[in-house]
Amino acid sequence: MDSKSSNHQHWVTENFDDQVKFGFPRSEILFSEKSEFQTVEVVSSPTHGKILLNDGCFMLSERDEAIYHEMMAHVPLFLHTNPKKALVIGGGDGGTAREILRHTSIEKCVLVEIDEAVVRACKEFIPQTAVAFQSPRLKTFIEDGVEWAKQAAAKIINGERDAEKFDIICVDSTDPVGFAQPLFGDEFYANLRTILSPNGIIVSQGESPFYADKMQETLAKVLKNNFSRVHFYNFTNMTYPGGLWSFSYASNSIHPIDDFSRSRVASSGMEFQYYNLGVHEAAFLIPEFQKKKLSAYLNPL
Amino acid sequence: MDSKSSNHQHWVTENFDDQVKFGFPRSEILFSEKSEFQTVEVVSSPTHGKILLNDGCFMLSERDEAIYHEMMAHVPLFLHTNPKKALVIGGGDGGTAREILRHTSIEKCVLVEIDEAVVRACKEFIPQTAVAFQSPRLKTFIEDGVEWAKQAAAKIINGERDAEKFDIICVDSTDPVGFAQPLFGDEFYANLRTILSPNGIIVSQGESPFYADKMQETLAKVLKNNFSRVHFYNFTNMTYPGGLWSFSYASNSIHPIDDFSRSRVASSGMEFQYYNLGVHEAAFLIPEFQKKKLSAYLNPL
Repeated sequence: MDSKSSNHQHWVTENFDDQVKFGFPRSEILFSEKSEFQTVEVVSSPTHGKILLNDGCFMLSERDEAIYHEMMAHVPLFLHTNPKKALVIGGGDGGTAREILRHTSIEKCVLVEIDEAVVRACKEFIPQTAVAFQSPRLKTFIEDGVEWAKQAAAKIINGERDAEKFDIICVDSTDPVGFAQPLFGDEFYANLRTILSPNGIIVSQGESPFYADKMQETLAKVLKNNFSRVHFYNFTNMTYPGGLWSFSYASNSIHPIDDFSRSRVASSGMEFQYYNLGVHEAAFLIPEFQKKKLSAYLNPL
Repeated sequence: MDSKSSNHQHWVTENFDDQVKFGFPRSEILFSEKSEFQTVEVVSSPTHGKILLNDGCFMLSERDEAIYHEMMAHVPLFLHTNPKKALVIGGGDGGTAREILRHTSIEKCVLVEIDEAVVRACKEFIPQTAVAFQSPRLKTFIEDGVEWAKQAAAKIINGERDAEKFDIICVDSTDPVGFAQPLFGDEFYANLRTILSPNGIIVSQGESPFYADKMQETLAKVLKNNFSRVHFYNFTNMTYPGGLWSFSYASNSIHPIDDFSRSRVASSGMEFQYYNLGVHEAAFLIPEFQKKKLSAYLNPL
């Protein structure tokens, strides 16, 4: 049933949940290491640039990583009137931080990545995203994000001197299996709520509306327990199964469309590959099947 | 690099342009025939239902075909105030016609499919879409759509008694290779322009913004030559390479957002799997990279 022959000798392939297999032509294997948490790989592809995989799942390709990272960063950043402090949980490739740091209002971005092998692999082989680590405004911790958030919340609760709140929090995690599972849990989000500034926004990697509808429901429910405003917004890239993918959006104040200042995007002078004024609003207008499944948890727009 | 083993013995796989390979678990091969035009196959998948392939390319799966067919049919149909006659060029699976015929204002839908093997395979194995062929309002021709359009245009020009114009035209074609190539050409669209009613709308399968950007430009240019209003609108399904896909939109009068009557959708009482009020408008708000590439041809929104 595979009717067309290939000119490529090697392919790099992901088997997603035994429901879909997909892959891209591969040239070299640049990095392959079994870390404490996962197998981290970087390969090069003649058609998709450098590709990062964790445990055999595509995390990013150079060809389309801008889509994910722009949509994770700029949607909340252009909604907050004056974001100064940002937190990235996960995101060890640096792509989300890179986009966050394009906003000149950001004074400090904290990145908490559990797996130093991811950061090391990207610093060596994917400078396109790892360029973020060169910024003096980025502070990186190689720590468990769940534990880090717990301690950061405790500092707030105890009124410690170095306690701090964040205007933008991006949960840039892998799929909710193994060590990443608690990143989709109630305790984690209760802690993030504590360290979120009053007009703050939390966006999280929200899985596939097609293939992970139950996981989306679980995440939406957790968010509804903790925040007064919950939405999902979608984007499409080339390297995730099914193409369509979601971020969750949570805030106690900011409406993702009504509070969107189109002029702020224009006056930023920033250029994007995927994001624009229309895409910002369109992303929140999700397909009917997804809207119905999440209707008990999402706020009306 | 294929780290996870599979429980499925067989997979059905598409190699798209030697840039991406993707596939789904397969149980039986239900239909396989080399017709005059292409190899037509229907297979069953334990995860995606029945799947139709032409020349090894996925045309539809039962699991997600509603997305493509809803977006091709309902976007133009809910824009036209009183669509009575529809034309489908291609679409031999019946899915687009099925959605068109849900609109009670439609008195007649003409479907022109070049390959009778597609219609026969779907009638036998994919009743989910082929149900359309049972409608007395559907008139099917097994003919070359390019030639059919030429003759239909000649009838209009010559003022023949059985000449007719169409309110909605859907060009539901395969990829622009081989016999389908002229379906993306200037002569074909000039003929469609002739048989389009004054408030008519033409939508066409518009390929991948990621993988077929040059083809999108070619199609957009052809449309601009023939119609005063040209747009592209996007959707995402699971069985096309990269996930993100486009329809082109052409009309000499109707604006796809300003002329959209939200109340007409509500009063139709119709239920959808993917389409809804938000999705209709959001679909036209295309990603920045695509907008830039097509900017010379698309009207502003």
